[in-house]
Amino acid sequence: MELKVVIVGGVAAGPTVAARLRRLLPEAEIIMIDQGRLVSYGRCGLPFYLSGQVRDISQLNATAYGVIRDPEYFFKEKRVRMLNRTRVLSIDRQKKEVCAENLESGERFAVPYDKLVLATGARPVVPPFARNRLKGVFFLNHPDDVQDILAAIEGVDEAVVIGGGLIGMEAADALVKRKMLVSVVELREQVLTGVLDRELAMALVNRLEERGVEFYLGEKVTCLEDDGAGHVCRVVTNGRSLEARLVIVAAGVQPNVELAESAGLSKGTAGAIAVNEYLQTGDPDIYALGDCVENYHLVSGRKVYTPLASVANRQGRVLANNLAGWKDSFKGVLGTTVFKVLDFNAGSTGLGVEQAREAGFKAVGTLIAAHDRAHYYPGSEIILLKLVTEEGSGRVLGAQGIGTGDVGKRIDVLACAITFGARAEDLTKVDLGFAPPFSMPMDPVHNLANATSNKQKGLLKGISSLGLKAKMERGDDFILLDVRTEQQAKARPIDDRRLKVIPLGELRDRLNELPRDKEIITVCPMGARSYNALRILAGAGFKDVKSLEGGLQGWPYELD
Amino acid sequence: MELKVVIVGGVAAGPTVAARLRRLLPEAEIIMIDQGRLVSYGRCGLPFYLSGQVRDISQLNATAYGVIRDPEYFFKEKRVRMLNRTRVLSIDRQKKEVCAENLESGERFAVPYDKLVLATGARPVVPPFARNRLKGVFFLNHPDDVQDILAAIEGVDEAVVIGGGLIGMEAADALVKRKMLVSVVELREQVLTGVLDRELAMALVNRLEERGVEFYLGEKVTCLEDDGAGHVCRVVTNGRSLEARLVIVAAGVQPNVELAESAGLSKGTAGAIAVNEYLQTGDPDIYALGDCVENYHLVSGRKVYTPLASVANRQGRVLANNLAGWKDSFKGVLGTTVFKVLDFNAGSTGLGVEQAREAGFKAVGTLIAAHDRAHYYPGSEIILLKLVTEEGSGRVLGAQGIGTGDVGKRIDVLACAITFGARAEDLTKVDLGFAPPFSMPMDPVHNLANATSNKQKGLLKGISSLGLKAKMERGDDFILLDVRTEQQAKARPIDDRRLKVIPLGELRDRLNELPRDKEIITVCPMGARSYNALRILAGAGFKDVKSLEGGLQGWPYELD
Repeated sequence: MELKVVIVGGVAAGPTVAARLRRLLPEAEIIMIDQGRLVSYGRCGLPFYLSGQVRDISQLNATAYGVIRDPEYFFKEKRVRMLNRTRVLSIDRQKKEVCAENLESGERFAVPYDKLVLATGARPVVPPFARNRLKGVFFLNHPDDVQDILAAIEGVDEAVVIGGGLIGMEAADALVKRKMLVSVVELREQVLTGVLDRELAMALVNRLEERGVEFYLGEKVTCLEDDGAGHVCRVVTNGRSLEARLVIVAAGVQPNVELAESAGLSKGTAGAIAVNEYLQTGDPDIYALGDCVENYHLVSGRKVYTPLASVANRQGRVLANNLAGWKDSFKGVLGTTVFKVLDFNAGSTGLGVEQAREAGFKAVGTLIAAHDRAHYYPGSEIILLKLVTEEGSGRVLGAQGIGTGDVGKRIDVLACAITFGARAEDLTKVDLGFAPPFSMPMDPVHNLANATSNKQKGLLKGISSLGLKAKMERGDDFILLDVRTEQQAKARPIDDRRLKVIPLGELRDRLNELPRDKEIITVCPMGARSYNALRILAGAGFKDVKSLEGGLQGWPYELD
Repeated sequence: MELKVVIVGGVAAGPTVAARLRRLLPEAEIIMIDQGRLVSYGRCGLPFYLSGQVRDISQLNATAYGVIRDPEYFFKEKRVRMLNRTRVLSIDRQKKEVCAENLESGERFAVPYDKLVLATGARPVVPPFARNRLKGVFFLNHPDDVQDILAAIEGVDEAVVIGGGLIGMEAADALVKRKMLVSVVELREQVLTGVLDRELAMALVNRLEERGVEFYLGEKVTCLEDDGAGHVCRVVTNGRSLEARLVIVAAGVQPNVELAESAGLSKGTAGAIAVNEYLQTGDPDIYALGDCVENYHLVSGRKVYTPLASVANRQGRVLANNLAGWKDSFKGVLGTTVFKVLDFNAGSTGLGVEQAREAGFKAVGTLIAAHDRAHYYPGSEIILLKLVTEEGSGRVLGAQGIGTGDVGKRIDVLACAITFGARAEDLTKVDLGFAPPFSMPMDPVHNLANATSNKQKGLLKGISSLGLKAKMERGDDFILLDVRTEQQAKARPIDDRRLKVIPLGELRDRLNELPRDKEIITVCPMGARSYNALRILAGAGFKDVKSLEGGLQGWPYELD
């Protein structure tokens, strides 16, 4: 008797399981059930369909060689029976069958299984203010959503995105590409909580504001106002009222766990379906994966909810291996995330500083600015990178970055390093590739590891932009030592009464201009000269010198 | 008494040592000596100056903030005495001093040291045919070379590059950008020996030929002909004669070891100065680094010569740490190399298959083709990636890739993985970042690791393009099963009598058209459908089925 596998969910995780399983077990009976008409589409591509970069929705639903992934495709290429427009209503674990309903005909029928796979995914969180279902208010979760938004966009110039997370950023990006004026309202004091630490999130917002996107942080949306005709006309927050006839709600997603719950399968701490490392639920014949399950975080050791297509795909392979009897385990995630918004690339892996501290680590953050390729090479851009390490051991706990340059490469390298337990010191020596179109002789990853190592050794005392700003606002007494060239210091002057300008090349000869009894904070554009200045001052016996980490590149405020 | 350090060589490795050492030891006396007028310039940028992408030579000699790195800069910013236009003639190890000569005045003088650092670099190999020093014949090693080439380029339409290594490729690239017709002559049967395995080198050459670059492989240059006026007019090889009034000789570099040798310091097996992991020569007070030393290869365990700026920079930091008494070791290299030629990115890390076998490993190579980002995302490009693993353990020994897409990221991730001893199976699960502008939900690194793992498990039997070509040329009897769509198979047909076209979607229903007693080799554009076809056939009981690795993307020959 051949194994009979029923997979609930046919968007991303489900099809991955089915495809791999078919390659492993030519004779297994594989049935995939999904409520939608459209199956196996690239949901992560939706913002790019909205932006116009993807021109036809079928591109998200086709193989790279142009074949639409519909039930016929699944049958012909995979011998998988795909029942779309079909909802699974319940699971009978004793009988080992699911009860399904054809959403077209209303017909109900039982589908028996040997192994059941839950790939039920997630759905957008609908905040209370969005429950009145006004016209002009959209989510960004399904191809239909995008088609609805595109139909509504005509003649509308301004849009409000509610939620400054990943989807919110990609939605804002898409609407800007559609020539709209975009405002982003975020409940928390920063965007991208859990993805970027505060100073990087601020630096990103700062840059996006320069390009015309407006941000309202720390503001709670209280209602979406009806224009009297059932269409949204205004987003009202606790702080203001924004005219808007187009609103995208991107308040996060929540796992679809109802089916699992009703079958008595337990949820984990993160609210999603609990699975072991073999991706089995509490019922050994029922597996689950993708956006509906919780994950184990490889650094914090905690359960987390990381609804990401990349995780779902890797889990799909592991799960299929287990179904086929090739025991395989999915150890966990780093929460690695990359995204693009306007001309900025950004991403993170592992833990941020606060997350690491919450997880019990003594965590140190180190921020640098660096050229992503040889500074003389055309197209060279600057990136900010931050490394989070454990004090003492130097073990890498996390990394993140933003910039117009190649951040993604460094995030992937650092994700790989974390996976294998690298310490900052190890990273200073990894033999990464260099040629001017790709890197600097010292890659930004090396610079980052070097700076971290310098901190560990007491060579570098850094201060973050947030720390310096707080000191300035408190009115602390210190010297803000600007070591840029005269030309640079004049072109973009820092307006602060504590400022002293001495170009690095003159510093050794002008030490007597600096008081020895005062705290000195050195600044420059990238943080490299300010570090050299710190070493000169430390070498000359100055006791309390700090360097602004990431330099003015990392400074998320005005200079005056 | 402060430490007195003399550094011989002021281009790349030397300045790195000096800068770091100054930050560690504020009071040390640091003297750097170089024969050139120009010091501390980015030699790796020369091809891009030649191409016109770098517009002014001073860009290669300036900091990112526009300050020229001349002796004054070194004194003012680093308190390093830079003696340029000065040659070190000899080392007196007993007295601990070097004898130097000012090349302007002819004055000779002794410079005592506590610690001596040799950063004497490398120079181009001058093959016998180039010894007649004809006009129009150049190397690409110094800014003056580029200025000479640029002066000679006027009115010349064709150029010959002798040597198909890294510099040869970058030279060819630069000359093509200068609108010249370029021929590359290479002694060996393939370009980039030691960087790319044969099938990738061939695929690259194939693509460059499509763009008009001509290659003459396996041809030995016998002479450069004089036009009678002391100018080159022809490159003569054992196979042909090429008109040429511009010739760039890129026959590799050799370490400058004469100074070390004359002081009795020993050379290593690779012909360069032998150093231990602290970068000390046989004399504990004399250190060496950069292009003049041999390195330890972290995978092969052998001594190798890897003259790369990235290595020199990382060594500079380690060496300075040791001079300052912070014991630090440079464990070795992977030989990681990345480069760009026309619109192709390429690179490698660790060992190729043949290199791995020579080093005693049972090595397996696995080649894939993959989209570098979501196939529906604008600008998505295809790359070829190859993983070299140890049979059995699956330990990653090396990786390489070429393509118009982002190869460099994957090479760096794989370099990091090799550093930490990753096995292919580990790589299938590394949490790399995904978003459509950066990757696929399964990154090419995952695809590569998955394919390798499938091979290990016996699920995938691959055949390389070279293997298939050899079988075809031998006239072997087998079925070449093209599983592309009808449309694809018609658009770019394969002309072979063994061909049978059955699109993947029809294969399950047309199995009876295939003989069960014959070897079957499945082909498709990327290698994914051909693998699926293999699994279908294997599942149906066909015994001898192989899939063409890397698909037609990796096929470096004509299709007919």
